[in-house]
Order: sequence, then C-alpha cells, then structure tokens
Amino acid sequence: MQRYKGIVTYDGSGFSGYQIQLNGRTVQEELEKALRTMHKGADVNVIASGRTDAGVHARGQVIHFDSFLQLPSERWVKALNGLLPEDISIMEVHTASSDFHARFDAKGKTYKYVVYMGSVRNPFKRHYAAYHPYKTDISKIKNAADFLIGTHDYTSFCSTKTDKENKVRTVSKISIEQNLDELVFTFTGNGFLYNMVRIMVGTLLDVGTGKIELVRIPDILAGRDRTLAGKTAPAEGLYLWEVYY
Amino acid sequence: MQRYKGIVTYDGSGFSGYQIQLNGRTVQEELEKALRTMHKGADVNVIASGRTDAGVHARGQVIHFDSFLQLPSERWVKALNGLLPEDISIMEVHTASSDFHARFDAKGKTYKYVVYMGSVRNPFKRHYAAYHPYKTDISKIKNAADFLIGTHDYTSFCSTKTDKENKVRTVSKISIEQNLDELVFTFTGNGFLYNMVRIMVGTLLDVGTGKIELVRIPDILAGRDRTLAGKTAPAEGLYLWEVYY
Repeated sequence: MQRYKGIVTYDGSGFSGYQIQLNGRTVQEELEKALRTMHKGADVNVIASGRTDAGVHARGQVIHFDSFLQLPSERWVKALNGLLPEDISIMEVHTASSDFHARFDAKGKTYKYVVYMGSVRNPFKRHYAAYHPYKTDISKIKNAADFLIGTHDYTSFCSTKTDKENKVRTVSKISIEQNLDELVFTFTGNGFLYNMVRIMVGTLLDVGTGKIELVRIPDILAGRDRTLAGKTAPAEGLYLWEVYY
Repeated sequence: MQRYKGIVTYDGSGFSGYQIQLNGRTVQEELEKALRTMHKGADVNVIASGRTDAGVHARGQVIHFDSFLQLPSERWVKALNGLLPEDISIMEVHTASSDFHARFDAKGKTYKYVVYMGSVRNPFKRHYAAYHPYKTDISKIKNAADFLIGTHDYTSFCSTKTDKENKVRTVSKISIEQNLDELVFTFTGNGFLYNMVRIMVGTLLDVGTGKIELVRIPDILAGRDRTLAGKTAPAEGLYLWEVYY
C-alpha cells in the first residue's frame, strides 16, 4: 500500500459539509465514491485536515488515503476529476510517507473570509461572500483584529458545540484587504476552534458598524465566554485556503 | 400609469432562461411575481431588452413596465429586492417616458464571455465561465476577432433556430483580455443574432487551438452558412453586460 497526499478544492454551496453524515451530500462521500470506483469497488478511507461545515468552501483542503494503485500524479488528478462531480476538483496528488497524517500533522492553516458590502446585493456572490451592506469603519476593524492576534484562550470565539478541551491557539496573522465593494479577511494560525473564524469575523464586523466597541475586544477575549462575542458570520463567506505541514 | 425602466442582474445558472415558458423557472416570471405582490395581485407585464438563454447571466439587463405606483427609485429597488429570489437583483429603477421600450429602443449591447483555461477545472467557475483547458494561441484569436468587426451578414454566426430575416448587424468592438487563467471577450454592437456571441466565441477558440485556420474566417463570414463556423460555446460563459439607448 502507498500513502497519498492530495489537495482538494470544493464549492461548499451544494454540500452538507465535508464529513460523511446520515443525511445530505458530503465532500468526503464524493471523494470516497470516486476512489472506490478507481479501486474496483474496494473501500478507500479519506482523511482530511479537518471538517468544513455546510456551505463552507475550500481552496486547499488536504487529504490523505492509502492505495494499492501506483500512479503518477497527473494520472491520479485526471482519473479522479473524471469521476468527481463538478463542484469538487482534485488539484494535486503526491506520494507521502506511510506515517503522514492530513489531520494530526497539520502545523497550521490559513482561512479567508469574503464580505460583500455593495449597496445592492449581488446574485453572483450569494454563495461566495457574506452580505454586509452596512456603514462600516474598516480602520476600526483592523485595530480590533490586532487584539485577536497572538496566543490566547479563544473560548469566547468558539462555538459551545465543541468537544475540544484546550481552547488555547496561536493566531499569527490577520490581514484585511478592501477591493472595491469586497472585504477579504485572511487568518493564519496553528489551529482554529469550531466556528472560530466565523465568530471572529462576526465580532469584527460588529466593531465596524459600532455595535461592539473596539476597546471591549480584549475583555471579550479575556472573558472566555461565547456570549460576549458577536454573532457567527455565515458559512458562505468562509474558505479553507491552505494547510501547512 | 407611469412607465419605469429598470436594470436587472441575474445569475442565469438556476434559470431556464429569461422568457416565461411552460416548464422551468424563468427570470421574467420571478420579476412579474414580485411586481404582482407589490400591486396587490394585479398583473404587471415586464418587457426586457431581449431574451437570454438557460444558463446565460446578466449584469445589466434592461426592462420596462407600467405601474400605478409612484415610488422613488430607492423604494422600488428595496421593495423588489425584498420580494425577489437571491439569484436576481434589481440594481436601478427610474421613471421613463411613456413611449420608452426596452426592446425596440435598444441602440446597442455589450456582451462579455468568460473562458477559464486552468489546467485543472475550477469548481467555483463551473457556472460562470466556459472551461477550455487546451493549448491556445491568443494572438491568433485576436487576429481572427478583427475579421468579425464591422457591418456584415452574420448568417454563419447565427443559430438556424431563428425567425429573423435580416442577418446584417454591426459589431463595433471585440476586445480580448487575458487575466491569469481567464480569457474575457467583450463584444459591442448594434444587435446580436440568436447565439451569435456564443458561435463567435466557439469559432475564435477553434482558431486558437488550430482547429480552424485564421485565414478562413473571412470565408466563413462570406459563406453565410452556419455549418462553416465553429461550435456554439456553452451558455455559462455568457453575460449580457450593458444595453445602450
């Protein structure tokens, strides 16, 4: 058996999330179905760097799987993309060492979050950006974001529906760029808790509109209480951008 | 009664086209449904600058309708967008003179056509660009496009499923821009025949790959025979961009 590492892009709008579940179409299920066809009906388990929720996108989700097939990278890419639905695309497949693990070996991740601020909603962005047509002070958002960088207990920015005990993570970078009517957040860190990026964005947007005062951000962080932070920004703006090993 | 002119953006991927038909969801039907709600159940007929086919998008489709309501522009936009589905958006509504006609008064149109040329298909572009991962000589495409500019009988670039007798049109501008893996065609003219932009793009891409020789384009045009030109490029790359009055 050979272990392979793959990079997968998907449009999350048609999926109930990454991970296989009883009801609803999932990315994992589609990947395993395509691999099963390539392996003449034999099951191939696919492990990803982490789950993504319903509606969340991925540019660079990383997976691993084991196979008795020995194929060059381009053959894997071609064969899998020929079997996968159009909303998933395999970008790369490479051999990996037999102990490589897409989830446990991940050293860090980058997420992007796209916010559309046009005065009239844009049909082309409805699945690909959060819509936020409110008067927003972007310099306040940037200042608030600086408070969220570092090594902190991010309990206030974690969904209560989590089973993770340790809520300490390191966010090494948050950048915010404005392109015309779009605001693009980039978050890089060693790991992110459940809904953490979406709660950080929701809170930062609340700072931008004045609903949450900028000076309160350090207290929200120190309070370790989800109810202190802002709302969870919607799934459609979120992209798992890159995973580092 | 007051005549109004509106500008409409829609993502064509969920529609069977612009015009109302027996089966399938249409843009016109959704617009008329929203207007009917605003007019307490009274029918309001919506006339557009022209139809778009299933899967074809519009940034700036122009419509007109008559109403007994007297509302300022922003109120029309807000009310209609509150009633319309998320894949249609009203951008502007203005009063127009009672003899303004969205179709008959149109003096010209601009269409854009987006081609994605990445080596691996991109899930985010599957509904918004034609996929063309073949070796393509863009300078040949530009040279071929120059032959298509001017006043010509475009029979060779018109679907045979048309009822238009006169196939003479003026194409005043064709520009082709490459942005990374994307090729964006812009066509401006006084009118376009059925499938004309898609057949021009299909033919130009065939020139780019060498399937059709560049020097044959003037003969294809002069031949006035649809079978001489290339294939009809797919609907998903096409955008009705702007209508001129």
